[in-house]
Amino acid sequence: MEKTIRVTVWNEHRHEKQDPEIARVYPDGIHGAIAAYLRDQPGLAVHTAILDEPEHGLTAEVLAETDVLIWWGHIAHGEVSDAVVDAVQARVLNGMGLIVLHSGHLSKIFRRLMGTACSLVWRELGEKERVWIVSPGHPIVEGLGPYFEIPHAEMYGEFFDIPQPDNQVFISWYQGGEVFRSGCCFYRGRGKIFYFSPGHESFPIYYQPEVRHVIGNAVRWAAPVATTGFREMHLFPNVPVPLDPIPGLVESK
Amino acid sequence: MEKTIRVTVWNEHRHEKQDPEIARVYPDGIHGAIAAYLRDQPGLAVHTAILDEPEHGLTAEVLAETDVLIWWGHIAHGEVSDAVVDAVQARVLNGMGLIVLHSGHLSKIFRRLMGTACSLVWRELGEKERVWIVSPGHPIVEGLGPYFEIPHAEMYGEFFDIPQPDNQVFISWYQGGEVFRSGCCFYRGRGKIFYFSPGHESFPIYYQPEVRHVIGNAVRWAAPVATTGFREMHLFPNVPVPLDPIPGLVESK
Amino acid sequence: MEKTIRVTVWNEHRHEKQDPEIARVYPDGIHGAIAAYLRDQPGLAVHTAILDEPEHGLTAEVLAETDVLIWWGHIAHGEVSDAVVDAVQARVLNGMGLIVLHSGHLSKIFRRLMGTACSLVWRELGEKERVWIVSPGHPIVEGLGPYFEIPHAEMYGEFFDIPQPDNQVFISWYQGGEVFRSGCCFYRGRGKIFYFSPGHESFPIYYQPEVRHVIGNAVRWAAPVATTGFREMHLFPNVPVPLDPIPGLVESK
Amino acid sequence: MEKTIRVTVWNEHRHEKQDPEIARVYPDGIHGAIAAYLRDQPGLAVHTAILDEPEHGLTAEVLAETDVLIWWGHIAHGEVSDAVVDAVQARVLNGMGLIVLHSGHLSKIFRRLMGTACSLVWRELGEKERVWIVSPGHPIVEGLGPYFEIPHAEMYGEFFDIPQPDNQVFISWYQGGEVFRSGCCFYRGRGKIFYFSPGHESFPIYYQPEVRHVIGNAVRWAAPVATTGFREMHLFPNVPVPLDPIPGLVESK
Repeated sequence: MEKTIRVTVWNEHRHEKQDPEIARVYPDGIHGAIAAYLRDQPGLAVHTAILDEPEHGLTAEVLAETDVLIWWGHIAHGEVSDAVVDAVQARVLNGMGLIVLHSGHLSKIFRRLMGTACSLVWRELGEKERVWIVSPGHPIVEGLGPYFEIPHAEMYGEFFDIPQPDNQVFISWYQGGEVFRSGCCFYRGRGKIFYFSPGHESFPIYYQPEVRHVIGNAVRWAAPVATTGFREMHLFPNVPVPLDPIPGLVESK
Repeated sequence: MEKTIRVTVWNEHRHEKQDPEIARVYPDGIHGAIAAYLRDQPGLAVHTAILDEPEHGLTAEVLAETDVLIWWGHIAHGEVSDAVVDAVQARVLNGMGLIVLHSGHLSKIFRRLMGTACSLVWRELGEKERVWIVSPGHPIVEGLGPYFEIPHAEMYGEFFDIPQPDNQVFISWYQGGEVFRSGCCFYRGRGKIFYFSPGHESFPIYYQPEVRHVIGNAVRWAAPVATTGFREMHLFPNVPVPLDPIPGLVESK
Repeated sequence: MEKTIRVTVWNEHRHEKQDPEIARVYPDGIHGAIAAYLRDQPGLAVHTAILDEPEHGLTAEVLAETDVLIWWGHIAHGEVSDAVVDAVQARVLNGMGLIVLHSGHLSKIFRRLMGTACSLVWRELGEKERVWIVSPGHPIVEGLGPYFEIPHAEMYGEFFDIPQPDNQVFISWYQGGEVFRSGCCFYRGRGKIFYFSPGHESFPIYYQPEVRHVIGNAVRWAAPVATTGFREMHLFPNVPVPLDPIPGLVESK
Repeated sequence: MEKTIRVTVWNEHRHEKQDPEIARVYPDGIHGAIAAYLRDQPGLAVHTAILDEPEHGLTAEVLAETDVLIWWGHIAHGEVSDAVVDAVQARVLNGMGLIVLHSGHLSKIFRRLMGTACSLVWRELGEKERVWIVSPGHPIVEGLGPYFEIPHAEMYGEFFDIPQPDNQVFISWYQGGEVFRSGCCFYRGRGKIFYFSPGHESFPIYYQPEVRHVIGNAVRWAAPVATTGFREMHLFPNVPVPLDPIPGLVESK
């Protein structure tokens, strides 16, 4: 039997409070829309957290019990405390999966884990986006065809300042003339990260079946792998006794 | 519920017939030893095939019903018919997983899929090999620690003429002074390939728990991903009608 | 002082003979247009070869004296002899650079070196292509800006059945709705391969400054690296004497 | 003519001041030893800087005039100011090359650019290291053979917590039983980074010809590529006017 994957959907949750138009699109918050979908999937236990909760809802306890963290933020990246960023980075390096959505590309945690500026060019006209699959054997594309369309999207364009992904899964086409590496897998430490650009606060993209389906697939892909005996990643232990004898230095262990 | 993965374990099966010493190590053949382990794993349906069967046991029907093919060959690579190599390559590009073991690095099918010579340097003294994990978040390392040892191994050393793997999972250390990229993941077409170097006809490596465990993990990783609408990979269709209107050329679809 | 790079520009050279329209675009052949540009660059010695010459102009002598081979073919891939494909593959694995242009994606040599079908979808309406740079630190983009446009291009679209490139340099946008990985670097053996999709027999793309500039940069990137002591890649030598003593087996070298 | 590459060799320069044994090995400092070699190479203009200079010798002016920065640090990583780390990161993302040596794996700047802990296991017995080449077509291995040895080295072992390199160039073998990804190329923003593990304050490794030769090759590989029109990487500009008309939204530009 597959182990239950414990998912925490984190949302900044400011747009929805400040803008009635956005609240109409996401009455339960973006986190609520995503969590509602995931709760219907077998094998997932879903929790949510938002910026305005104590420790942004990401206490040591919550992180310790999270297998995959989904991150949505936009206008308040700077309000996320560095201590929480430190804790999330440590959890990812020690095995937790992280799925960063859309405007989360500029979040502290994504920039921290990428080491780059994570900048891009953007345009908000509601143009069409067509998401092409360039890795059709990857588990994140399960159930999809060669492409799917997002009728009205914010354009995110290259150059996107990220490391070349370990596996490039999606590349998007935009009506106005740009391309974008819209689905990117990264292995970091013992953890896995998926960046997925579709989604926006004022378009109902997180209700679109293909987008939800990808997020569900990504949760299963990013779930931790159980191993034994790996050190915590912040440690750099001395191993004074060699595994094998070194002639002239150490004849036998 | 997870879908059953249909595995075919293919073995050249010549050493075991020709050499009583080897037959003592693998009385049911190398394929038998591997299949016996896999048959004990949940969710797998295991079949075997060998070189001396008609079409090497890899008829169109068998391949069509194989999700993951495991390949072991050594002294008779040249006897594998090009027609079977063609058929296996096509199945991999269209989604079948392929796990190539040890001396299979020089098999026609592995060289075909890599595009390189797949050559290496080697030494057969039965020295110790230590297999280090360099991608601890990868599903193929589930259940393992930072390394495991093979007490008596054939040395395979660099330079190993393969493309840089999409994900490098294992790197081996040998007592005699070499290193080797011993666990390598490749995405090709809609399929996935795992090369795993441990294993030899005269050492009981395919009974070693860690080696068997890795093969089982690799089967699950390499299993096909169900998608819809991807063309057969040998096709390169013309799509005369654009998806979007081209001003001045095609105003609307 | 930089060493002169010896370039051979290979062209199928059939379209130009069979079709007066195409001959008007490329009166000296596609090879002639490319060679004319390269001859103006410092540090290059440029030679051409075509299909209808003996051994397609790629004799052992020519290949031995070629540092970088540029390949253009389209309607006569099947006429290229397997012996020449074998020889070119061997030269690439042993250090020669290879630049494959446009419809060369279906050439025997490219499919051989990739191991995949190298298929794609295509459309010939003369639509606009915009070539975006996604690896701005790569030497192949020297002198370029964030993108350049090809006013009238044949569309090549995903899914492009190639291995994920070692370095993805360009991704193209097409007016009709597709994207394409249009500039792809691959390390294979001791050689390097660059696939570059812009270019077509009936559009004057090989006169466009940006396209020519990229080809020139690619020649310099793909030039062989002088090393010492690497075996020929088709060899897989036994090294019976270990580099280091193996306690209990080989006490000292 | 090739453009002169301006190199700054940065050294923490504490061991050499505090420990007479180390001062005997590196009387001019580690930076002095490396700079002396580079000054003998054509086409390089070499400068040095150390921790105890104002702004660690890495003022805005110095960084602006540095094409490739070489970094050696060990016992005083924590004394490097965050402002200097910010400035170096920005320069790398905007094109400067960075070569991080040995114990620099735990420097603030390397951890910042990798996004991971960059931890490893280590042992200081002076055992033998054998550095194997796994990318023989890469310019960083120019002039080398299949491997070279370092007679007495500090062991650095896996798991090394870095992103999988864009190009893996070297993998080291250690007498005591470990392997290590000892030569790693990363593209980040418009810059390039090379991590090279050989080297230690108490062994004369930076006088060894192969090690020096690799550093020289890496300088040439990491040199900036001149492009035009790329934004500063910390910027994420809005581009309100699409490059192509969007039917129904923007009919023409």
